[in-house]
Amino acid sequence: MNTTSDQGGNSSRRKFIRQSALLSAGTLLASATPFVAQGNASLRPLANVATRGYAARDKSGKLSPFTFERRPLGDNDVLIEIKYSGICHSDIHQMRGDWGPQPYPQVPGHEIAGVVTAVGKNVTKFRVGDQAGVGCMVDSCMTCESCTHGLEQHCDNGATLFTYGNPDKTSPTGITQGGYANNIVVRDHFAIKIPKSIRLEDAAPLLCAGITTYSPLMKANLKKGDKVGVAGIGGLGHLAIKLAVSKGAEVYAFTTSPEKVADIRSFGAKEVIVVDDVARLKPYRKTLDYMIATIPAQYDVAAYASCVKVDGTYTQVGMPVGFQLTISNIGLANDRVNFRASLIGGIPETQEVMDYCAANKIVPRIQVIKAGEINDAWQKVIDKQARYRYVIDAATI
Amino acid sequence: MNTTSDQGGNSSRRKFIRQSALLSAGTLLASATPFVAQGNASLRPLANVATRGYAARDKSGKLSPFTFERRPLGDNDVLIEIKYSGICHSDIHQMRGDWGPQPYPQVPGHEIAGVVTAVGKNVTKFRVGDQAGVGCMVDSCMTCESCTHGLEQHCDNGATLFTYGNPDKTSPTGITQGGYANNIVVRDHFAIKIPKSIRLEDAAPLLCAGITTYSPLMKANLKKGDKVGVAGIGGLGHLAIKLAVSKGAEVYAFTTSPEKVADIRSFGAKEVIVVDDVARLKPYRKTLDYMIATIPAQYDVAAYASCVKVDGTYTQVGMPVGFQLTISNIGLANDRVNFRASLIGGIPETQEVMDYCAANKIVPRIQVIKAGEINDAWQKVIDKQARYRYVIDAATI
Repeated sequence: MNTTSDQGGNSSRRKFIRQSALLSAGTLLASATPFVAQGNASLRPLANVATRGYAARDKSGKLSPFTFERRPLGDNDVLIEIKYSGICHSDIHQMRGDWGPQPYPQVPGHEIAGVVTAVGKNVTKFRVGDQAGVGCMVDSCMTCESCTHGLEQHCDNGATLFTYGNPDKTSPTGITQGGYANNIVVRDHFAIKIPKSIRLEDAAPLLCAGITTYSPLMKANLKKGDKVGVAGIGGLGHLAIKLAVSKGAEVYAFTTSPEKVADIRSFGAKEVIVVDDVARLKPYRKTLDYMIATIPAQYDVAAYASCVKVDGTYTQVGMPVGFQLTISNIGLANDRVNFRASLIGGIPETQEVMDYCAANKIVPRIQVIKAGEINDAWQKVIDKQARYRYVIDAATI
Repeated sequence: MNTTSDQGGNSSRRKFIRQSALLSAGTLLASATPFVAQGNASLRPLANVATRGYAARDKSGKLSPFTFERRPLGDNDVLIEIKYSGICHSDIHQMRGDWGPQPYPQVPGHEIAGVVTAVGKNVTKFRVGDQAGVGCMVDSCMTCESCTHGLEQHCDNGATLFTYGNPDKTSPTGITQGGYANNIVVRDHFAIKIPKSIRLEDAAPLLCAGITTYSPLMKANLKKGDKVGVAGIGGLGHLAIKLAVSKGAEVYAFTTSPEKVADIRSFGAKEVIVVDDVARLKPYRKTLDYMIATIPAQYDVAAYASCVKVDGTYTQVGMPVGFQLTISNIGLANDRVNFRASLIGGIPETQEVMDYCAANKIVPRIQVIKAGEINDAWQKVIDKQARYRYVIDAATI
């Protein structure tokens, strides 16, 4: 597909130039032949795409400015000028090697919202100028049963390509590089349409925090008035509350931060339980129809799960160090609760949560920061100081 | 209820003496007034019951002969002369303090089969001479929703009294004492009828190993031809295979002991997978309708659970050291399997599995040992040498 001959006519060349009008100066590397036409379709950048980002250099997890390149725009790709990028606790875990050794430099970020500035010749899903986002994955086999059923995160061929840190032959750096950057090249299927009715900075966190909580909540088949527990009220948890409330649930929020109580009530929770001791959970034993836990660290799972009614489900979406969670098997036996883990959601469902939130005015509570504040923000995330999602203004990168 | 006046007439006294005909000499402590009549009903032993057993003295878990007393027979109690007592890995875990500090001396054993030698005045469920068994619990509140629905192991008032090591005011030693002994006094409700068509030595292991695997297998609502995985083929696992096969399942047995393969096939497993490396599990990914794991130690749960189809259930019944099981949350997220733990079963279901096995000629493969061989047998259980359940001949205690 990397043909180098220039076979394009003036029409398609003009089309590409028109589509590329929003490309900021310097996005394309200087080149004698920066574009190539393919067949009768639009021109596309032949050269790698220059990108500015913030990368971790080692497992200290300190980020610093990093200039790198994205792959040239392929036939099925879109180039997105990133406007905002959310900070997820997963970024921190992965950069620090909590989930295994990492290649560096690595640019984290999988809550990416921006504007399409170029599209490959086969792309019909987007037009230049559209709002678009990228979440936790950027490719998969697209042919297996899981992929063809909207579960690309569970690609049966193991070809799910996560947004940063995965080996990627198409990437000039050899790995996928994430969204703490000013642009991204991504296969169109993996870009999410962001309706105009939602601001890009509000849309970004929906692409991980939103879908990760929405997907298991939808699987829980909630009925109006069902009692839903949410454990851990940070970026994910506060969205879980808003989503569950919007679906008619009565939400019980469990937090270890007493100073969050007023906020949590404002998100719509019926009750806020400050769990300074697991004994606080006892009055809620067997009272909830469903519970979701976003806590990204080791904790007493069985004590929380005991709040769910017999045969109910408890979903763990927070991913602790090493992904390892130690559970009391006797506690869980006494609880008689289904313990599940859940990993983000597929592309169709990610589009669904984006559209749902845009239509229902469900937005995260965010704090927009400058790129220079990322390291400070990371520390605040670790210290449970985030209120409730930091979003990087990519213009400052 | 501990009235001391002798109000009984000759008729009821004769009745009690008749009922007590099977009592072996020395079962009752010598006493000037060994029996007391209550109202117009039968007499009952007023005195404590002398018992010989084998007890752990400390967390070394070495057992030695121990003479102690059971409580006097209460109105709702039965006195069982124990004939056989199975050895469960749980006995070893608990005596060694793997599940928390223990009171000593403590007599383990919760797979108890014997013959009724006396009944309290209110008892109608048993007659002297009946075969009877005791499993993992000996009392509960009997009034809460769980207890009145046959889930005494989940007593809502937390009053489930397990067969050994639980504080028990009615016990002269202050704790419940288990079945490595020559008799037991137990509330009638918690004694299981053992049909005459099953030998007592075969019935004993059904009272823990049998019910613990039967209960979750029944919850799995298996359909004929369903593919069922059984991980860990010891005392529980080999019964799980036989039970699942009898219900029409196609059983896939996972063991780490290659020398068990022929036996396991003889139990009815369709396939035996020797898991010398978790990579052996890969060909079975997402192929099983249900899986039960009896492994009583830390292991790679997510790797095994990945054999279950999406949204299927994986039940952990083996209880590891500290009851703590460390699970890969990302692995479980990828598997999309319900992880459950399960704890024995209620009394009605324990009776059900006993009757089912008696009717269907489902018996454990046992090795009968003498009391003096218990310590050696325990080591063999730990070393995975049991084939497949050691049963103590209580006549040798």
